Amino acid sequence: MSSHHIVREKQEPALLIANGEACNAELLGQLLEWSPTVVVLDSAIWRVLDLGIKVDVLLGDFDRNLDLDSIRAQQYPLEIVHTPDQDKTDLDKGIEYLIEQGYPAVNIVWATGRRADHSLTNMTNIVRYKDQIRIVMLDDHSKIFPLVGRFEKWYEAGIPISLIPVGTVTGFSSEGLKYNLQDATLTLGYFTSSSNEAAEDGFVRIDAKTGDLLIMECWD
Amino acid sequence: MSSHHIVREKQEPALLIANGEACNAELLGQLLEWSPTVVVLDSAIWRVLDLGIKVDVLLGDFDRNLDLDSIRAQQYPLEIVHTPDQDKTDLDKGIEYLIEQGYPAVNIVWATGRRADHSLTNMTNIVRYKDQIRIVMLDDHSKIFPLVGRFEKWYEAGIPISLIPVGTVTGFSSEGLKYNLQDATLTLGYFTSSSNEAAEDGFVRIDAKTGDLLIMECWD
Repeated sequence: MSSHHIVREKQEPALLIANGEACNAELLGQLLEWSPTVVVLDSAIWRVLDLGIKVDVLLGDFDRNLDLDSIRAQQYPLEIVHTPDQDKTDLDKGIEYLIEQGYPAVNIVWATGRRADHSLTNMTNIVRYKDQIRIVMLDDHSKIFPLVGRFEKWYEAGIPISLIPVGTVTGFSSEGLKYNLQDATLTLGYFTSSSNEAAEDGFVRIDAKTGDLLIMECWD
Repeated sequence: MSSHHIVREKQEPALLIANGEACNAELLGQLLEWSPTVVVLDSAIWRVLDLGIKVDVLLGDFDRNLDLDSIRAQQYPLEIVHTPDQDKTDLDKGIEYLIEQGYPAVNIVWATGRRADHSLTNMTNIVRYKDQIRIVMLDDHSKIFPLVGRFEKWYEAGIPISLIPVGTVTGFSSEGLKYNLQDATLTLGYFTSSSNEAAEDGFVRIDAKTGDLLIMECWD
């Protein structure tokens, strides 16, 4: 076995690199600091290898004739997982792979920006996995994660927080925001709690009865 | 009246410039070619003035203390519309302004990218106005518009088309796509028709019974 092979306990979040807009080097560096398992989706592999990042798993349907031999020559060992299912996105398949492998959490980057269809689908599809793995999606302006159970976190006053339903959320209640709601129904496209913020230094609490909610911390 | 003042028939789509990621100069140039009414949202005005674009209307809540005198000095005549309503986004208010002014159509740019909460809200909020004004949202990788009635358009084979429900769409049927569906229910986050494409040179037809659907033409 290569000396480069690291046996991991799978306690740290894995890092999943999708094929949207690249994030800044500082964010990527922070996420790589604890040597997470790195999974790269399909043709993003070239951009990732250009950055000199050690990749553990390359996953995709490879429908654009990716030159796997050339990739293997640059990156060894590398597990290659071929996922031809056309009913799921590469990101779905990457998350499902990590769930199957027993990872409790994943940070996802490069999943937003560029093509709006991919960006919208990537941001919203994460809700279907919310009870199986902890997911945080990050880009240069955003941290996105689904509400699971009750959410409680300490924020500084004025920190922007957006609460966006993926479809319809009922029984939405909040505390500690500038604009709070009680037992409200949020509906994407019609009534959301976007561009809200922490009212003061202190806890923000979010709860909902049914539906899928995205919590988004974003900045300019 | 200034000689710069152009009386318009409001037959051409207006151009609404939001405050997300700037698009490329070529796209902006195409949209400006027919001298549309140009509406700019809030602090995007500085980036727009830097490009030397003639702005007709500046609209926003101006909650970041925009220096209106300085802007007026650079751009005359300029209609300034103050919209303090905190229950709506600046983009909502810009679209509503154009509806009130009697415009039949609007092209929207700079509404995607950067902050994911703004991007997600902007892309999905357009459905609420679909029966009042024709809306097309554009960026460097995407053309986004809501389904209104039945959709029929000729495409070249292989052109990517994504059909994304804003919430739930029932009675979704398609013809001419690589992956067609009949009388299907699409649910955001769970089952969409993203990353589809025109099956051959010919017409693509899309229909739905209830709900709001985004049609997205996107490219890498």
